[in-house]
Parts: sequence; C-alpha cells; structure tokens
Amino acid sequence: MKEFFKVKELSQVIGYSSEFPLAGTEEIPLVESLGRILSTDIVSDMDIPDFSRSTMDGYAVCASSTFGATEGNPAYFNLNGTVAMGEIPAFSIGAGVAATISTGGMLPDGADAVVMVEHTEALDDTTIEVYRSVAPGQHMVEIGEDIKKGDSILSCGQKIRPQESGLLAAMGKQTVTVYKKPVVGIISTGDEIVPIQEIPGPGQIRDINSYTLSGLVQQAGGVPLTYGIVRDNLNVLTRKCALALSQSDMVMISGGSSVGTRDFTISVLSSLPDASILVHGISISPGKPTILAKVGNKAFWGLPGHVVSAMVIFNVVVRPFIDHISGISRKQTRVWKLPAILSRNISSAQGRTDYIRVRLVQRDNQLTAEPILGKSGLIRTMVKADGLIEVGMNIEGLDKDTPVEVILL
Amino acid sequence: MKEFFKVKELSQVIGYSSEFPLAGTEEIPLVESLGRILSTDIVSDMDIPDFSRSTMDGYAVCASSTFGATEGNPAYFNLNGTVAMGEIPAFSIGAGVAATISTGGMLPDGADAVVMVEHTEALDDTTIEVYRSVAPGQHMVEIGEDIKKGDSILSCGQKIRPQESGLLAAMGKQTVTVYKKPVVGIISTGDEIVPIQEIPGPGQIRDINSYTLSGLVQQAGGVPLTYGIVRDNLNVLTRKCALALSQSDMVMISGGSSVGTRDFTISVLSSLPDASILVHGISISPGKPTILAKVGNKAFWGLPGHVVSAMVIFNVVVRPFIDHISGISRKQTRVWKLPAILSRNISSAQGRTDYIRVRLVQRDNQLTAEPILGKSGLIRTMVKADGLIEVGMNIEGLDKDTPVEVILL
Repeated sequence: MKEFFKVKELSQVIGYSSEFPLAGTEEIPLVESLGRILSTDIVSDMDIPDFSRSTMDGYAVCASSTFGATEGNPAYFNLNGTVAMGEIPAFSIGAGVAATISTGGMLPDGADAVVMVEHTEALDDTTIEVYRSVAPGQHMVEIGEDIKKGDSILSCGQKIRPQESGLLAAMGKQTVTVYKKPVVGIISTGDEIVPIQEIPGPGQIRDINSYTLSGLVQQAGGVPLTYGIVRDNLNVLTRKCALALSQSDMVMISGGSSVGTRDFTISVLSSLPDASILVHGISISPGKPTILAKVGNKAFWGLPGHVVSAMVIFNVVVRPFIDHISGISRKQTRVWKLPAILSRNISSAQGRTDYIRVRLVQRDNQLTAEPILGKSGLIRTMVKADGLIEVGMNIEGLDKDTPVEVILL
Repeated sequence: MKEFFKVKELSQVIGYSSEFPLAGTEEIPLVESLGRILSTDIVSDMDIPDFSRSTMDGYAVCASSTFGATEGNPAYFNLNGTVAMGEIPAFSIGAGVAATISTGGMLPDGADAVVMVEHTEALDDTTIEVYRSVAPGQHMVEIGEDIKKGDSILSCGQKIRPQESGLLAAMGKQTVTVYKKPVVGIISTGDEIVPIQEIPGPGQIRDINSYTLSGLVQQAGGVPLTYGIVRDNLNVLTRKCALALSQSDMVMISGGSSVGTRDFTISVLSSLPDASILVHGISISPGKPTILAKVGNKAFWGLPGHVVSAMVIFNVVVRPFIDHISGISRKQTRVWKLPAILSRNISSAQGRTDYIRVRLVQRDNQLTAEPILGKSGLIRTMVKADGLIEVGMNIEGLDKDTPVEVILL
C-alpha cells in the first residue's frame, strides 16, 4: 500500500488546505477578542466622530478671522464662552469671536478651526491676541473624518489587534462574531515514550512532542487537546484516533516514526470510515515521512517522531492548514521574513526543500544568520534557534554571505 | 510646577525603567507556561538521551564491519535479534552481527552505528546484505548528545517558546518557576468619554483607549485591569488612582489630554504619598505630553488622550518598562525590525523623534513602506497600519526609496 504513494512537493501539500471547512463562528465579548479572527464584514452605522472635535487646547474661531495674524500684527478676538467637555456649546461664534476649548471639545456653531493656546495671549478675561493664522479645519477633526457612516471598516478574516479592538469599541460593539479557535487533537505514540512525570527506564524517553506541539498550536491560535501516549497497539490507537477526531477539528499523531507505528498510522486510517490518504511523504527535510489524510472533513496528520522534524513540519506545513480553518484571510497569513546574511556555506540536496535552523546575530549593522547544525532528534538545536531558512528544491547549497530570509520561531 | 520640567529624550526616559523592581515569581504548570519568562536558571540533572538511540529504522551494527561495503561488494551480517522499543536489548553484537532496530530504539552493547534499512536487503530470516558503509556514531544519538548532565540549558529571563517547553518536558519538569505577569491598571479620564455600551450624546465619544491599551498590555505579556472612566473630578480621580496603584504593578491614565485633566494628573501625583515626577514631556511625536511618575516603587503613566499617540507611546516607551518588570532578559527584548523601502518623501521636525505609521506592500521583490498620514486622533489610521518607522532627532525628513526599518504593530 505504501508504495502507491509518491512523495509530494510542499506547495502541492499546502494546496490541500482548501479542501477543509472553516471552523464555526461564535459571539464573544470584545474584551476577549485580541488575536481572534472576524467572521463578518463590519460596516459603520455612524460617523466617528459625529461632531466637530478639537484636537488641541486653545480657542475655537472662524479661521478667516485669523488670516494674516503674526507676532508683530496679532489678530484680536473677544471671548464669548468656554466649551464644556461632552456638551453642546450653548453659544455660536462669528467673526472676531473665540471660545475657549479643550482637546476633545465640540466646536461651537460658526467655528471652523482651533488656534493653539501656545499661539495666543490673553489680554484680559474677555480678549485674546492671536499670533498665527489657521486654515479652516486645522487642529480639529471633522464629522466622519475618522469613519463615515456606511464605510466598510473591517473585513471577514481580519485579525483583531489592539487597534481593531479600539475601532470596534468606538462603534459600541460589546461583542464580536469571530471564528472559533480550531481544536487540534495531539496523540503521542511509541512504546519507548513515557509521560513527563515518570522517570524514564532504560531505553525510554519522556514525551516531548506533546509539549512542543501544544505550544505550536497555541501560537497558531488553536486549542491543543492532548490525548497522552498510546502504545504501539492497533486497537487502542484506532479507538484513540476515533475519539480525538470526534472531539477536534484536526488531529496530529506524533512520535510514531518507527516502522511499526508508521504502518499503524496507515492501518488506523484504513479502518476509519471515510478516510483517504492525501499525502504520504513530502519532499522536504527534515520531516519527509509526513502523512496527511482526510477523515470525513477533518485533516489527520502523521508527523515524524523527531522533535525538530515535527516542529519544522508544523511550522511550514500544518500551520497553513490551521490558518485556513481559522478563517484568517490570505493576506493576513503572510509571514514576514527577516532578511539576514548567511554566516557560512551550507550544502543542501537537490530535489527537496531544506529548512536550516539559524541563530540571528547582529554584527555591526548587519543581521547574520548562523546555521545551527545537529540531528533532527535534538531539541536543544531548536532552543538555540531564532528561526529557519528555506533552501529551495533546485539549489545545491548556499554560499557564505548569501542574503537569506529568516522565518522566526 | 509644570514649567519646572524639561522635555526629555526617549533614551533618557527608557533609562528610568531600571528604577522599578521586577514582578514577583510563581510556580505554574508547564502546560500553561507558553510565553512566560523563566525566573531561574535551569541546569540539567540528567543526560538526554541517557542511552544510545537509533535515529533511523534499520540495523544496529559495528560500523567497522561495514567498511568498504558497496552495491557491487556488499557486507554480510547475521541477524541475532530485534531491539524492542523502550527496553534494554537482551543481547550484544559483535563483528559481522546485526540487530533489527527502529527509530528511537536502544543500541545493543557492541553496536556503534545504524545502517538504514534502505541500504540493505534481507537474504533470509537470519542474513542481510549491506550496501553502504557507515561511520561510528552514524544514524544514532549518543548518550548526552542532546543535553549533558550539569549543562546550563535555560537562563533566567528567557521566554518559554514551544521548544523550551519541550526541553523542560524532557527534563521531567511538570511545573516551572516564572515571573508573574505584571498587572497594569488602566484608567480613562475625560468628561466627554462614555462607556462603549452607551450611545454617545452630542459632544461625547466612546472610550477607545481602555480597549486599545488593554490589548497592548496583553500583547506585552501583562494583565490589564481596567477601572473605567473617571470624570474630571480631582477627589474621585485621586481615590481611583490610589486604588489602582494598590492593585497593580503599574498604572496608566489615558484620555486626560485636556488642560484640566493634565493638571489633574499632576495634582493627583502631588497628593499621593511617595510620588515623584520623572518625566513631563518627551521629545517624540506623536505623544509629547506624556507623564511618568514613580509612586512608591511603581510606574505611573499619564498618556496622551489621542488614540494614536497613546498607542505609539505604549509601543515605544511603556513596553520597555513592562519588559523590564516582567524579568525578560535584555537580549530577548530586542525587537526585530523589518527592512523596507520608503514609498515617498516624508518630512520630520528636527529635535524630536518622529514615529510614522506605515502600511507594508510587497512590490515585486521589494517590501515597501507606505506612510499613512492622518491626525493622531484617528483610530482608523492605526487599523490601516502594519507598523511604525522611526525618524531620528537630527533628521529633517526621509527621501522616497530610503531604506527604513519597520517596527511591526
């Protein structure tokens, strides 16, 4: 059965993400919405601000009355009141008349600009000198200048940052409708793996992947659901996978990189209803022996057991699937890569995409990416790493001082 | 009193951060530790792995028995057993003898390398041909190759990413001692501000800053504690500030950008015990009228009321203080800036550091930073922005096509 599958290229694998449905939606309080993904477009039902607002402390005036004013030739204004914050001024002003106003205050009728207090001098309680001219609209925000009623202000798929949260607050949205966080089931396998609270016996190691993968799922905006360690027993593994599939939006089996367990993963998939294997091997290193199946409408991953391989595969392959089912818009999934200069030659095999762990070091004005070498079973190499660089399929290696782009970890 | 204070430069202001004590520490479950800051160094009390482990499926051998093996001239091995996962092999091997082993299996005594199954052929149940030679140590991890007993593996001040979490799992740490998340009290002021659930009357606007600042505090790894809106009343504001100071590690008053409220902030500070004003104005735009006081051993901020100004000040001034009291190490506070090319000329005043909102656009192979213009009271300009660029004190402006570095928002 294994022989039937050909190793696929990364772009082909990521292309399968569109086969999976988006997570459902839910309404949550605005105060809990940071980092969540909007599931509707938002159109403003109001002008913001809905009154002309001063942006400075000073005097509301008719701009035209200030034209030509200088230190040597000030304009004179009569004061006819003070704008109380949060209230409609009870008066209007005309030519040569000014009203005291604070930042955020509402301009009185007749005023079309604000003179900063720094450019004035009070002669007495009712008269001021103005030393600079202002243009109409200066030092104020007009009605709807921030947002106009009917404007499309936010889009479905947009991630809520602090500023989007502020914009929704301005609109009076106490709740917001977002995509649910995808629940990702995590199963560790392998007869040599023990829970972290146990002292490993000879030949045993503790379960690392459940922890690294849970962290990665959280970073990706998902909710990890761990199912512990399953021994290499087909029946137990099948039951656990069926349980995880029923409780999660996506399932990852990890640690089963031994021949036996790999075959188990395929056997489990064969025994699950409505399962089809989409990928069995990716032309990527580390992480080639990755399996992706579709079970019902859910993605089911067989990740390599080596901790570095599993982390790299998560970052470059699984994460785009989580982004997709999270509803995040294509534009916002773009990963900013940091340009750096390679510190030494690296070799790479043609016909596969290599991911090299790197440490970033600032040298004078130049950011340098220093490759971290080490086997893909060594967690410490990932602890030392700040990021990954990609070496394409058709490249045999990269020379020292080549500009590279670093995916931050 | 105001006149006494001189506007300070950004670097001077940030220098005050070291005057404030770090948050306390707490012990938390490892599964909840993502993003937290270690408050102790961690030294390994074990070798990882503590046995020689295969990293491939194949056969454990003495490497020397494979030397010279090729497809045309294979080496022959007698099989003397299969290594069971998680167990000590009950046999040892010598020259010309091999044992079947899976990835993660323990090498039997006498074996010092693993031959990949792909480079062998089974002739019968007890004999295999090997087509490639392996070096001692190949396709295996030696005892302590990942981590040696006594190694310093993680440092106080280090942020826990998924890989650090995995490393702690490997060490059997079910709990981890970290710095507490700093609690940051947030108070909105201004008679024109109403809670978001209210419909603003004429001259009123909803409280945006409580939401943007709460989001920023969360992004910075802190816990926001909001105290709602306080009217411009000195007694009420003083009581609220005293309450917030007693419940938080740091307090931010925002929205009080009117003359009255600004004076209130100074008056409140004067009435609080053990308060000293460190900063009253920063040579930065937007956000010049920022106040920083030390009350007891806590930082107390008077942030500008304009939403953009408050966000910029948070990102470039307040955030380093939160990083400091969070215990994050200096090395890890470095903000990676993304290089881009400026899309058009911008002007800037000398004598202050300007922060310009920019949108990032990929044009062919070039990342372009497009300045977003707009008053500092307009939240929508921040929604459009991907980041900020800094224009230094002594620069009058930047030309189109100048390389710039973007601080991501």
